[in-house]
Amino acid sequence: MQQDLKHTLSLLERTPATLNAWLRDLPDAWTRENEGENTWSAYDVVGHLIHGERTDWMARAKRILEFGETRPFEPFDRLAQNRKSQSKTLPELLDEFTRLRAKNLDELRVLSLRPEDMERRGQHPALGTVTLAELLATWAAHDLTHLHQISRIMAHQYRQAVGPWSKFLGVLQCAGHSS
Amino acid sequence: MQQDLKHTLSLLERTPATLNAWLRDLPDAWTRENEGENTWSAYDVVGHLIHGERTDWMARAKRILEFGETRPFEPFDRLAQNRKSQSKTLPELLDEFTRLRAKNLDELRVLSLRPEDMERRGQHPALGTVTLAELLATWAAHDLTHLHQISRIMAHQYRQAVGPWSKFLGVLQCAGHSS
Repeated sequence: MQQDLKHTLSLLERTPATLNAWLRDLPDAWTRENEGENTWSAYDVVGHLIHGERTDWMARAKRILEFGETRPFEPFDRLAQNRKSQSKTLPELLDEFTRLRAKNLDELRVLSLRPEDMERRGQHPALGTVTLAELLATWAAHDLTHLHQISRIMAHQYRQAVGPWSKFLGVLQCAGHSS
Repeated sequence: MQQDLKHTLSLLERTPATLNAWLRDLPDAWTRENEGENTWSAYDVVGHLIHGERTDWMARAKRILEFGETRPFEPFDRLAQNRKSQSKTLPELLDEFTRLRAKNLDELRVLSLRPEDMERRGQHPALGTVTLAELLATWAAHDLTHLHQISRIMAHQYRQAVGPWSKFLGVLQCAGHSS
């Protein structure tokens, strides 16, 4: 399907509550473990989502609307959470993500974007020309990439424990493409 | 890590609320669409999880405790939801899953399993000898497999809409191994 602002919003607005139901107060054995060296834990993923709310999605949407293709987006720092989350608890990160996402979606709604705005163009530093519709669709699909990743990280903790069932469990066949 | 009953329970008890936060009242464009012929929608996945609660996990745990390896498990019907979910709404299925999961976890807690029970053995019709610990770990990892699948099914709906970003989105590279 085409990007549809109502559909995009319906998905984006549910992610904080989904992560909250899934991860809050879950033992560290699930949320602080990763898939091996240089991979992320669920805790790291929430920090990454916070950084996206602060610096990526709405900043890029506004740049498209203000400057079009004349000013490329700032590159996104995929590892910023390693510096910024330190010393925060997972419940604190979940609260911060919830607050920032709600604020960003309020800002997005206030823009009252029309269908023709969706075709407005910006410059991505690596991908070149992109549209506002593509940016908004990617914001939603990026949430899904990281929900997908969290399920894989947590399943990895039981990789040995499931014994012979491992071959029936699709998540254990996933090749780590979204780390 | 080894299967740990507290860790397993902490994960199993959160899945209904996670699915509820994620899927309830989400537009059908996200929940009723699949990845193509002979694949599942998020709606189908919830029906499959319900069938597991009714016929698989606790039934197999009880069989191990009552009969050990002398009576193999019944095979699990992976397509039962196609017959059984018909005419139910997704909110109805979410409510049913929530109720059945809570009931099963109550039954599991009442068993007051000791560490030595975890090594008790059963016969899987395809996999041969399995332990109770492996069964319980698989119950949790099976939830994660289907959360992983739902994120992939939903991301697929925006596969075209994200434009050039598709190569950066891990979930769009996932090869459908958990369908």
